[in-house]
Amino acid sequence: MKYNLLNKDTIVALATPHGTGAIALIRISGPKAIEIVERVFFTKDQKSYTLNEKSSHTIHYGFIMAGGVVVDEVLVSLFKNPNSYTGEDSIEISCHGSQFIQQQIIQVLSKQGARPANPGEFTLRAFLNKKLDLSQSEAVNDLIFSNSSVSHQVAMQQMRGGFSNKIKLLREKLIDFASLIELELDFSEEDVEFADRTELKNLVGSIQNILDKLIESFELGNVIKNGIPVAIVGKPNAGKSTLLNALLDDEKAIVSEIPGTTRDVIEDEMTIEGVLFRFIDTAGIRDTSDVIEQIGVNKALDAMRNSAIIIYLFDAHELSRQDLVVELEKIKGIAGTSQILPVCNKIDTENFEELQKEFKDISNLLFISAKTHLYLDDLKAKLVALFDNRTVNITETVVTNARHADALRKASASLYRVAEGLGKNIQTDLLAQDIRHALEALGEITGEVHSDTLLENIFGKFCIGK
Amino acid sequence: MKYNLLNKDTIVALATPHGTGAIALIRISGPKAIEIVERVFFTKDQKSYTLNEKSSHTIHYGFIMAGGVVVDEVLVSLFKNPNSYTGEDSIEISCHGSQFIQQQIIQVLSKQGARPANPGEFTLRAFLNKKLDLSQSEAVNDLIFSNSSVSHQVAMQQMRGGFSNKIKLLREKLIDFASLIELELDFSEEDVEFADRTELKNLVGSIQNILDKLIESFELGNVIKNGIPVAIVGKPNAGKSTLLNALLDDEKAIVSEIPGTTRDVIEDEMTIEGVLFRFIDTAGIRDTSDVIEQIGVNKALDAMRNSAIIIYLFDAHELSRQDLVVELEKIKGIAGTSQILPVCNKIDTENFEELQKEFKDISNLLFISAKTHLYLDDLKAKLVALFDNRTVNITETVVTNARHADALRKASASLYRVAEGLGKNIQTDLLAQDIRHALEALGEITGEVHSDTLLENIFGKFCIGK
Repeated sequence: MKYNLLNKDTIVALATPHGTGAIALIRISGPKAIEIVERVFFTKDQKSYTLNEKSSHTIHYGFIMAGGVVVDEVLVSLFKNPNSYTGEDSIEISCHGSQFIQQQIIQVLSKQGARPANPGEFTLRAFLNKKLDLSQSEAVNDLIFSNSSVSHQVAMQQMRGGFSNKIKLLREKLIDFASLIELELDFSEEDVEFADRTELKNLVGSIQNILDKLIESFELGNVIKNGIPVAIVGKPNAGKSTLLNALLDDEKAIVSEIPGTTRDVIEDEMTIEGVLFRFIDTAGIRDTSDVIEQIGVNKALDAMRNSAIIIYLFDAHELSRQDLVVELEKIKGIAGTSQILPVCNKIDTENFEELQKEFKDISNLLFISAKTHLYLDDLKAKLVALFDNRTVNITETVVTNARHADALRKASASLYRVAEGLGKNIQTDLLAQDIRHALEALGEITGEVHSDTLLENIFGKFCIGK
Repeated sequence: MKYNLLNKDTIVALATPHGTGAIALIRISGPKAIEIVERVFFTKDQKSYTLNEKSSHTIHYGFIMAGGVVVDEVLVSLFKNPNSYTGEDSIEISCHGSQFIQQQIIQVLSKQGARPANPGEFTLRAFLNKKLDLSQSEAVNDLIFSNSSVSHQVAMQQMRGGFSNKIKLLREKLIDFASLIELELDFSEEDVEFADRTELKNLVGSIQNILDKLIESFELGNVIKNGIPVAIVGKPNAGKSTLLNALLDDEKAIVSEIPGTTRDVIEDEMTIEGVLFRFIDTAGIRDTSDVIEQIGVNKALDAMRNSAIIIYLFDAHELSRQDLVVELEKIKGIAGTSQILPVCNKIDTENFEELQKEFKDISNLLFISAKTHLYLDDLKAKLVALFDNRTVNITETVVTNARHADALRKASASLYRVAEGLGKNIQTDLLAQDIRHALEALGEITGEVHSDTLLENIFGKFCIGK
C-alpha cells in the first residue's frame, strides 16, 4: 500500500496542469503544512511569517527562499483544519508558472519534510476525514475529466451527493428490513416471524425496482462519460475525413485523441450541444492491400458493431439509388442494435433537386456538403436527437461508474436471492446473509465498506495534486 | 492596437497551463471584477456574496452558477486595488481543472461583461499602474520561461529591479550632465560654458564604461537565456544519439524540443548543474545521399560554427590516433571560436589502458561509455567548467534581453558622438541632441519612454493569463 492511510505525514504536489503557464499552484496538506511553509516563506524584508497566527482563508504575499536565494515571489493561501479540502491544515502556493520554479518549490518543501503526494492523495484524505464519501470522491475525478455539459452535470450531481443520498436511502430501507430479520434470528429457536413476509416481499421488490433503474441508467451513463460512439463508414472517396474535419471545425470543440485506443481506427471526441460524441473514422482501412487489410476490416466491423450510431456516408456521383439500398442492407446485417444514418455528401457539386428525387424513398437520409458545411447543422441536430431518444431524464440519477454498476448488480443479485428465499420460505439466517451481502455491496459505493486495495484502485486513477 | 491602454474594462483569462489538472485558476481584473463575480458566485445555500464588504486577500468558498445550474464548486480569492498584481480590483477563481469547466467559467464571466484578456495584459496593467517597470515586466515573462537555475536567477534579479536600478542610476548621471549642457543652450548667445569640458568627458567616459560592460554581458546573457549551444559531431556510428539520451536520462531534466528550429538538425535542451545547454545533434545528416545531403551538411557546418562547444565523438574501434588528429584539424578549420572537446566513446568494449596510451597526447580528450554511462559525470563537469570559464560573475547584472542590448548599443553610440563632439568642441545644441537620444534609449529599457507599438510587441509575447 503506497498510501499512508494513517494520515500522519504532510504531502506536497503540483495541483495545476503540467507545463508552463502564467501561474502554477503547489499544494501542501498535513499536520506540518504550516510549519514547513513558515520555514521557507518570508516577507519582502526577509522576515519570517507566523502563519499560525493568521486566520484561515487568508492570502499572504512573500518570497520562497532556499539557501539565501529567492526561488520565487509567491502568494500563500492558508487553510486551517478542519476548514480545508482535505480537512487538514493546508497551504496553496501560487507561484510563477515556470516548470523550473515548480520543481524548485516542490524540492524546497520536500527538503523540509513534505512527502511528494501520490495520485489522488488529497482527495483520499478528504475521504478519510469524512469530507466526501467514496462516490463523491470518484465524482471529483469524473468532474476533472468531464468534457461535455452532460457528463459535467452528472459528475457535479454525484459530487454534490445526489447519488450517495439515493444509495443511503436504499441502505436505510434495507437496514430496517435486516433488523427485522435479525430479530427473528435472535429468537430463531422459538420459530417466530416478526417480519410480515408479504410486507418484506414488497419492500424487497421496491428496492429492486430502484436498483434496476440505476443499473439500467449505466448504459446511458457509460456513453455520457465515454461519449456516444459514432462510426463513420463509406467508400474511400466518400469524404469521411472531410466530414470529420468539418464537424471539428464547426464546433471549435475540445478535440482530444483518446489514449489507449487502437490506432488502426482513428477516434476523435467532440461535444455537440453539450453531448459528447466519439467519432470513429474507419477511413483508409480498405486502401491497403496486404495481410494487414483483413485485420483492418475486422476492426472496422467491430467499430460498427460497437457504435450507437453508424453514419453511412456516400458520394452521389459514385452511388446509384440501387447500390445504396444494397450497401445499407449489408450494413444492417453488421450493425446489430446500432442506428444507421445514411448521409449523401458532395451535394454542392450536384443538382440537389434531382438528388432529392432520386433518393426520396430512402428513410432518414440526410444531404450535406462536408466541404462547404452545407446542412451540417441538420446532421448535428439529428445526432443529438438520436441521443435524446435514448435519454430517459438526465436530472434523474445516472450511474456512470462501472464500479458502482457492478456493486449495484451485486446488491441486486443478493436481493434476488432474498426475494426467492422469501417465496420458498427458506431459513432466516440464509436470508440474513444475503441481505448483509446486499448491504455490503451498497456500502462499497459510498465507501462505508472499503478495503485498502479498493481505495488504492480508486485514487490511483486520479491525477497527482488532486 | 488590440490592448486597451485606458484600462477601463475588466479582463478575464485562464492563468494556469492549458490542459487537465487537479486545479485551474481563472483570473479577472478591472474596475468591475468584484461586481461581475458577485453576480455568478453563490454560497452553498445559493445566497449572494457581498465580496465588496470582505477584506482584501481573503478566500471564499462557494459555487459558480449559470442559469440556475452549478458550473463548479470553487474558491474565490479577493484582491482589492491597489493591493493586487495589476493594481486593480482582481479576483482569482480556483476551480476543478477540467477543460470543460475552465471554458464554462470564462464564458459565464464573459457574459457578465468581462473581456477575454490579450497575452500579457495583466502584466501590462501592472506596468501601466506602475507596479512594475518595463524591464521588470519583461523579466516576469523570462521568469516563466526560465528553465535553468542560472536563467532563473538572472530573471529573478531583473524582476526584483536589479537591472532597472542600474539603468536609473545611469539616466540620473546623464540627466545631471544634460542639465548642464541645456543650461549652456539657454545662454547660448552669450557663449558661456557652464560645464567643465574635462569633467564632462570623464562623466561620459564613466557612463560608457558601464554601458560597455552591460553590452558585453549580453553575450553571456544570451547563452544563459537560450542555452549554451553544444554541437555533437562524429561519424554515424560514433554513438551521438546514445550520448544525448544518456545525458538526458542522467539528468532527468526538463527536456524540451525547441519550437521554430530547423528540424533537419535536432536540438535538445537540458540543464546540467543549473546551466542550460542546447545540444545540437547532427546525427544522420551524412546518411542520405541525395540532393538534400548537401543542404544537410551545410546545416551541420552552420551548427558547428554557431556552437560554443563542439563535442567530437568517436568510436575507438573505428578511428586511429592518426585519423583523429586529421579529423580534429578539419574541425578546427570550421570551428571558429568554438571550443572543441574530443570524446572517445565505447570504452566499455575496449582495453581502456591501451586506449589511454594510444591517445595520451591528444589534449582535452575525455573517455566515456555513453551506453554504460561510464565517466559521463566527467563530461558533464567539463561542459559546466567550460561555461564557468566564460562567466564573469552572474551576481553582476547580466543583460539577457536583445531589446535591452539594442537600447544600450543605441545609448552607447549616442554617447560616443557626445565624447567625439566634446573633443572637437562642436556646438552645444548638437551635443544636447545626442544626450537626449542616449536618455531616450535608456528610458526605453525601463519604459519611461515607450510607444504603443513597443508595448504591444513586448506583451504580445507573453502567455495569456499573465
